[in-house]
Amino acid sequence: MEDYVIRPIGVVRSVLKDPADAPKQGALTEQEAEVVVDPAYLAALDGLERRVAPAGEAVSGDSPRRNSGKIIVICWMHGADRDRLKVHPRDQEELPERGVFSTRSPHRPNPVSLHTVTLLSIDRNVLRVRGMDAIDGTPVVDIKPHSPELDG
Amino acid sequence: MEDYVIRPIGVVRSVLKDPADAPKQGALTEQEAEVVVDPAYLAALDGLERRVAPAGEAVSGDSPRRNSGKIIVICWMHGADRDRLKVHPRDQEELPERGVFSTRSPHRPNPVSLHTVTLLSIDRNVLRVRGMDAIDGTPVVDIKPHSPELDG
Repeated sequence: MEDYVIRPIGVVRSVLKDPADAPKQGALTEQEAEVVVDPAYLAALDGLERRVAPAGEAVSGDSPRRNSGKIIVICWMHGADRDRLKVHPRDQEELPERGVFSTRSPHRPNPVSLHTVTLLSIDRNVLRVRGMDAIDGTPVVDIKPHSPELDG
Repeated sequence: MEDYVIRPIGVVRSVLKDPADAPKQGALTEQEAEVVVDPAYLAALDGLERRVAPAGEAVSGDSPRRNSGKIIVICWMHGADRDRLKVHPRDQEELPERGVFSTRSPHRPNPVSLHTVTLLSIDRNVLRVRGMDAIDGTPVVDIKPHSPELDG
């Protein structure tokens, strides 16, 4: 099979500086952070402003068309070990090893991570989000609106 | 920013052969398909069997630890136009163009797609899933357990 090249479109800016600071995979966080998009992709953000959470709060609604205030930020976990096929879940040595595809470990053949976050504001190419567990400097590869219907 | 290389870990096998056959982005589907994982990654599937939906049906439970029967299959939409920053939502010409990051269009700088599907069965390296809108031959780059808490 053919290989493909990922060209990051932005970067995470966070007070979380070290992988040891980051919440373990599977843990929820209220951490606020910025997603700084390369200005070359500014046009691609057009329309995302309607996804900003009303009054900074996510809305839980039964209509999938209603603004949930959530977006999915897809990152590349550049510190991951791509050759590991098994891990101890949540880095707990006492738990038996499992295949990485049955875990949310950063270690996996293609270390793509999903972050469903609340979009608090957009200032030109800078998105302020809540619920981001990626550390400072993590490359961002894509941004999508979250759909309760498709993703929930 | 540095580039990264995606090495597909599998491929989608589906009766959907043509992009025109695929449901428009944002549409739900009950389409069944297979995710054929490269046998080199067999060990990485270990533990995923506990994610198989009971009796082939997804369980809706309030406990995030309960098996929802859902996994997230991440694909690379190899037919996408990576240079398009704006699209007509759902390919409807009468809708005004919007930035690709505010849509689920396949056309985007890094054409990674998310498919939250029901895992029906696993036979060695072949996963049978329901709700897959990717066409036959689409490269698969990652598989993760779905978490209602993280992804919902």
